[in-house]
Amino acid sequence: MIFFHTQGMRTVTEAHQRARVAVIGATGAVGRQMLLDLAAAGFKHVTAFASPRSAGQSLPFGSRQLRVRKFARPSCCTGFDAVLLSAGGDFAQRYGKRLAAENAIVVDNSSAFRMAADVPLVVPEVNAALLDRDTYRIVANPNCSTIQLVVVLAALRRSFGLQAVDVATYQAVSGAGQRAVAELEQQLRDAQAVPQVFAQPIAGNVLAAIDRFDAAGHCFEEVKMVCETRRILDLPRLRMHATTVRVPVYHGHSEAVTVELEQEVSRAQALACLQEQEGLELVSVDDHARLPTPRTVAASSKVWVTRVRLPYGEARSRWLQFFVIAHNLKKGAATNAVQILTRILAGERCAK
Amino acid sequence: MIFFHTQGMRTVTEAHQRARVAVIGATGAVGRQMLLDLAAAGFKHVTAFASPRSAGQSLPFGSRQLRVRKFARPSCCTGFDAVLLSAGGDFAQRYGKRLAAENAIVVDNSSAFRMAADVPLVVPEVNAALLDRDTYRIVANPNCSTIQLVVVLAALRRSFGLQAVDVATYQAVSGAGQRAVAELEQQLRDAQAVPQVFAQPIAGNVLAAIDRFDAAGHCFEEVKMVCETRRILDLPRLRMHATTVRVPVYHGHSEAVTVELEQEVSRAQALACLQEQEGLELVSVDDHARLPTPRTVAASSKVWVTRVRLPYGEARSRWLQFFVIAHNLKKGAATNAVQILTRILAGERCAK
Repeated sequence: MIFFHTQGMRTVTEAHQRARVAVIGATGAVGRQMLLDLAAAGFKHVTAFASPRSAGQSLPFGSRQLRVRKFARPSCCTGFDAVLLSAGGDFAQRYGKRLAAENAIVVDNSSAFRMAADVPLVVPEVNAALLDRDTYRIVANPNCSTIQLVVVLAALRRSFGLQAVDVATYQAVSGAGQRAVAELEQQLRDAQAVPQVFAQPIAGNVLAAIDRFDAAGHCFEEVKMVCETRRILDLPRLRMHATTVRVPVYHGHSEAVTVELEQEVSRAQALACLQEQEGLELVSVDDHARLPTPRTVAASSKVWVTRVRLPYGEARSRWLQFFVIAHNLKKGAATNAVQILTRILAGERCAK
Repeated sequence: MIFFHTQGMRTVTEAHQRARVAVIGATGAVGRQMLLDLAAAGFKHVTAFASPRSAGQSLPFGSRQLRVRKFARPSCCTGFDAVLLSAGGDFAQRYGKRLAAENAIVVDNSSAFRMAADVPLVVPEVNAALLDRDTYRIVANPNCSTIQLVVVLAALRRSFGLQAVDVATYQAVSGAGQRAVAELEQQLRDAQAVPQVFAQPIAGNVLAAIDRFDAAGHCFEEVKMVCETRRILDLPRLRMHATTVRVPVYHGHSEAVTVELEQEVSRAQALACLQEQEGLELVSVDDHARLPTPRTVAASSKVWVTRVRLPYGEARSRWLQFFVIAHNLKKGAATNAVQILTRILAGERCAK
């Protein structure tokens, strides 16, 4: 089933060039970004699928155009070396396991399998070793706001230990899909425009909850962030408080974070630790003109961290504050999924 | 000097009707709101002052118009029962004490005197008792983002004790003045508009620092929030972490807060405590359509609190999370200053 396995060890480029990859949900905001990332990573044999409603469109893939095929049932998509799935939680619940049975690997971008014991939940900079096991057919891509957070937390945990996390998010409207982007554009043109995607106007506003509420008053975006962070870091009892808020920004989630470490650090030690972390861009200069913002990081696939500081008046502390920004469709979704796929193709699992 | 003192005990309305009040900085965003609040509170004898550049304008005061007088030097403004000062920190540093010598009371909206030992820093719902003393001539109005926070913290401290506070703010552009509002409007019309007030575009963006930086990486808005909160609550060693962020919202500051209490509470106990607090509007229903937002609280002078919850998965906890919103020009500035004045006129200090 894993066709390229029999070829033995090869270079990353060879594995990419040979691998046959399907993207399901290719016409969505994340699906389109997956195609861009696959082309940039050197993949050659990519097939785009979407619902019957969106099939037939053409999507750019490198210098070519891909005609989008219709996904009507799992038998439409069999025999691929990898399926990147970005079609929502209900779709993944319904078809994910059958797709995994009929293709070598499924990387799913929804929350459907993120807490499943036999499905690794992976941010490559943090826990790529999980991909070397031979026991999974599905890999879950974490939630956008979680991915950018754990890249920073992993560096701090490794150097200083981690006791507690407080995080408040400033999340872009594109995290709610392309219709949400159109809704903000419409409200900026026409103040009388009636909201459809969000329950209240988002232009000139902030909405202090994302996704449905549970009975205890948490919204599901917060629940995902707490549960996924604990799972990815393998810290099941990490004290963690999250508030997730939608802001009128097109792309790029921001997060104000305060952590309690297991040992006291200086500001310089914290900066040195973060400077070393793969996948992070650290901006340590305190200058309004050079501060990273959702607009300035929009071209980047990295996780940006800035405003690193100790509590006011303290020269050493177990508490540390910082601000994290990443493009929610790139490292927050598509790029991380393609990195997972690249890691699998280059890894021990494939080299056996 | 305090002309109405000799009249003995009187009703609030009588004191208001007799008091002669000057507003300096009357043409600014906060000054205009002060005039609205003074008129609404029943004041009759109000004089508006502004810089020579802005003098001569007419400003609405109840059903009348006030012609704005020129403030060139402190001798322009003497003999008033109260001066409401909203002309910035440099102006207050330069003229505040002389104005206090030539008038009965000065309520200053800048940061100039907020940490001065002989100047009370007052949010009436929290520490109005400081106004009953006879030892001050200047009262400091706290920073906008602090006022709305401490009204909530005071209720929690009274019922449950308070150990630690984490707060992340989502602050409106009008907190940076009327030019900032015009800048956001301009950027929404013209994406090429060059920022003047802010160092980077604010439309479709968030700016993760407000005001100048100190050497340790804190911005002054955060320093004010930490120091003022500790002073107003009289908890000088309160563990507190603040991140202050500008968002593309016209009016209304929002704050995501996590507190550590001295005792465990249930969610119901926390809600009951906040329900009792003067000056608070509690929204305890978890419904996206009814969630308070900066846009929905814009007409209100109250502090709005919502999203009250314990950490995920806990039925009782010493940790509590909530979201606070208030209009930054109303309760965050002008309304609090007028409430201080009203309280002084009605209080023991005047009744002697």
